[in-house]
Amino acid sequence: MNASVPPSTGATLSYEQAGVNYDLIDPLKVAAQRAAAATAVNVAAHGFTEVQASRGESAYVVDVGPFYLASIVECLGTKTLVADEMKALTGKSFYAGIAQDTIAMAVNDLITVGATPLVVQAYWAAGGSDWFGDAQRAQALVEGWKKACDVCGVAWGGGETPALAGIVESGRIDLAASCTGIISPKSRLSVGDELAPGDAIVLLASSGIHANGLSLARKLTERLPQGYLTEVEPGLSYGEALLAPTVLYSPVTEALAKAGVTVHYSANITGHGWRKLLRHPSKMTYRIHTVPPVTPVLKFIQQHAQQDDREAYSTLNMGAGFALFVKAEDAERTAQIARDAGVPAWVAGRVEAGPKQVVIEPINVTFGEDDLALR
Amino acid sequence: MNASVPPSTGATLSYEQAGVNYDLIDPLKVAAQRAAAATAVNVAAHGFTEVQASRGESAYVVDVGPFYLASIVECLGTKTLVADEMKALTGKSFYAGIAQDTIAMAVNDLITVGATPLVVQAYWAAGGSDWFGDAQRAQALVEGWKKACDVCGVAWGGGETPALAGIVESGRIDLAASCTGIISPKSRLSVGDELAPGDAIVLLASSGIHANGLSLARKLTERLPQGYLTEVEPGLSYGEALLAPTVLYSPVTEALAKAGVTVHYSANITGHGWRKLLRHPSKMTYRIHTVPPVTPVLKFIQQHAQQDDREAYSTLNMGAGFALFVKAEDAERTAQIARDAGVPAWVAGRVEAGPKQVVIEPINVTFGEDDLALR
Repeated sequence: MNASVPPSTGATLSYEQAGVNYDLIDPLKVAAQRAAAATAVNVAAHGFTEVQASRGESAYVVDVGPFYLASIVECLGTKTLVADEMKALTGKSFYAGIAQDTIAMAVNDLITVGATPLVVQAYWAAGGSDWFGDAQRAQALVEGWKKACDVCGVAWGGGETPALAGIVESGRIDLAASCTGIISPKSRLSVGDELAPGDAIVLLASSGIHANGLSLARKLTERLPQGYLTEVEPGLSYGEALLAPTVLYSPVTEALAKAGVTVHYSANITGHGWRKLLRHPSKMTYRIHTVPPVTPVLKFIQQHAQQDDREAYSTLNMGAGFALFVKAEDAERTAQIARDAGVPAWVAGRVEAGPKQVVIEPINVTFGEDDLALR
Repeated sequence: MNASVPPSTGATLSYEQAGVNYDLIDPLKVAAQRAAAATAVNVAAHGFTEVQASRGESAYVVDVGPFYLASIVECLGTKTLVADEMKALTGKSFYAGIAQDTIAMAVNDLITVGATPLVVQAYWAAGGSDWFGDAQRAQALVEGWKKACDVCGVAWGGGETPALAGIVESGRIDLAASCTGIISPKSRLSVGDELAPGDAIVLLASSGIHANGLSLARKLTERLPQGYLTEVEPGLSYGEALLAPTVLYSPVTEALAKAGVTVHYSANITGHGWRKLLRHPSKMTYRIHTVPPVTPVLKFIQQHAQQDDREAYSTLNMGAGFALFVKAEDAERTAQIARDAGVPAWVAGRVEAGPKQVVIEPINVTFGEDDLALR
């Protein structure tokens, strides 16, 4: 079983066709996860304890006494290739948004365990010193990075700006961010032990493709009459629509904590699309009665890649960038707090006893246990 | 003034000739440092305080109440290119050592502020999924990573293994590590406020070139009769000598803490070689009376790159990978504790009132304030 590859049929453009082969990555991942798990004894030697349930979650958590410590490193992926192409086509620099995307990849994962992000470190590895010679682009990256830190309430601690000719391609940059946070009070820890049938599922809006599915999105330009300049809607090119920066969700989770709303579990909807709703290890059914409006660029991708709903929702976020699982009585309040923080939100479904599956009723699609193997 | 570029003369092979242009990187660094410094208010909003003196140090520190939190992300650099070349020439995989190098880059920087490293995250960005298809190499990377974590007493929390075709070159991998630690008790914080004239300088042995100066080292193969297979000493090729894994120094700093030795300041001797001894912001003179034996591969590089001592010590670690600044009466004990932890060490000099300079008496070389501009 290799469920990391989306189901693919006929003339649709799938992830494997777009050049990502999870078969080759997964054995390494399994070996690495096993070796990593065996290092838990090392924190124990310092008198601390790892939160074992965080293994397999989006961020790693250690109990350091007065609070939990959470940490993560995340890669942006290949979204810069779209920014570079659009710069060549339009003269505009999109690197302020790219900076936000990179921080979002780390912060939106870190908050799933209940953490308040505190410090972000920048990892900007260029193909050569000359990358940094484009002052407009470099300035956009710096300003966008700082702005995203301010939105998330994190300190930008520092980082690395190596020039890696021979490893990173000339003219390109490999962007990543690490993030450290704390979970305080400790009751904010959300690694899934509180999730239960009866809980509500609240979905938070995405701004577009975010930073997952870009290999597919880039490949798709080959099929478009004007490539990245093809219009998604009047006045909005495909390239520009793809480059809408990823929503930063930590203002929502911080507002929820301040309001005293307990989050039972969270899922950052990134790669694997809505199959990420199956992330929790338990066998439960996630029944969705309301799907958010699909962001125009995602509708456009689905249409031009000739994907049916099953394929599209298994790969892309389809309008929902983050899922919060809360007590049923907190559902409406949770959605309202998100909206007050500027993020559209919907009470979209509920958790039920039953087989492990997500049932998306409005589009008649079900993903079962075999459709996601993340652990 | 751009002192980041080593002084270069005549037919010597300098860093600039090896393709690293700091002129282009530095303006971005300055802009980034300024923007980052302005985000300190964000941790203040959470009721915490940044340790301002850690700005400009090797790791960023936040006061979170019961202890300090330190974090960092560090890149390996281009040492993998040597490993790849040596694999082609000898069939041997050197990726276990490469893993240790990567962790050393992060851990050896994190400990300079007095932190106990707790969690490491892996960042392994390959040029394509096929990188992970070489099972022997992937396995070596995993095993070396785990072993280095065990040596440093850190938990391997997780990480990222993206396939970045179009950004990372095909067949290559961009390796980095993030590390989070705590400084506890808080008296272990060493960001330099305790450094004073009269303190002793203890140098810890390097194992070779470590992971800095590799651009130069790679460029040098063009001048060698058999390239990487040229012998540094009988039975030891240049390539293999370069690939000696970086020493992990956290067992030494942890042993010092356990023994109750207060470290006033530390410097990880990486890029900029011995000019790193000038890292502390104050104006003081660092007088070195004893230089460690020069590791054979570094002597070989100096000789074949036709560098004088001034150039060599301004670029390479020349046998000393880490410097500890301690009270004079703790000097011998510090060196002995390091040796007991398996790392050769020398009481090598002292801190004096005077102009900002490092005076390396045995080789008659002095680096002044203008020779290092890191902040």
